[in-house]
Amino acid sequence: MRKTGNLLSDLPEGTAQDEIFDTLAMGPGMRIERIVSTGQVTAEGEWYDQDDDEWVVVIAGAARLKIEGEDDERRLGAGDWIHLPAHCRHRVTWTQESPPTVWLAVHYEAAG
Amino acid sequence: MRKTGNLLSDLPEGTAQDEIFDTLAMGPGMRIERIVSTGQVTAEGEWYDQDDDEWVVVIAGAARLKIEGEDDERRLGAGDWIHLPAHCRHRVTWTQESPPTVWLAVHYEAAG
Repeated sequence: MRKTGNLLSDLPEGTAQDEIFDTLAMGPGMRIERIVSTGQVTAEGEWYDQDDDEWVVVIAGAARLKIEGEDDERRLGAGDWIHLPAHCRHRVTWTQESPPTVWLAVHYEAAG
Repeated sequence: MRKTGNLLSDLPEGTAQDEIFDTLAMGPGMRIERIVSTGQVTAEGEWYDQDDDEWVVVIAGAARLKIEGEDDERRLGAGDWIHLPAHCRHRVTWTQESPPTVWLAVHYEAAG
């Protein structure tokens, strides 16, 4: 069966307790994931610190992202994408709750 | 410099002569590409027949896709995604011209 879907379907009506993660495709060293946030943020004092590179885009909603070493948080709205190299420490400091914030993330092996 | 952008920026005002292809990120065996179509379609009688898998989503606009062996064309609108395994022959038979149709494609090595 052919795999298809819509990034904007099956969104929570209100606020979900947790972020929702769906793997949409996988290849050798590569994974495409939809993330739905409804206000969730990275826990205080925690950072994402990933072995893989991540390319991530906001499909709908909005978010704020703090990258270690940067003075200002970045605000991301629909269509905004950013490349986060492996071990680029970052935190999500705000996500729009309603309508939900929909992210599309591509995780892939870092080059070299 | 950190690589960032917006999928909906720098779109042609009217109809571009050709589709516009921008590589947004690359990893080993993986490439993320934005494609902007303004009415272009696959040439009559031609098929895409790719060595890599492709995962593609319509970010804005709309398109129709014909997959070899399927009776009906598929209509894709904003948020619709489809996985096209390597050598799944397909043609784009229509793209919305204005506002432009924006695709996000992830090309990656087929498993096994």
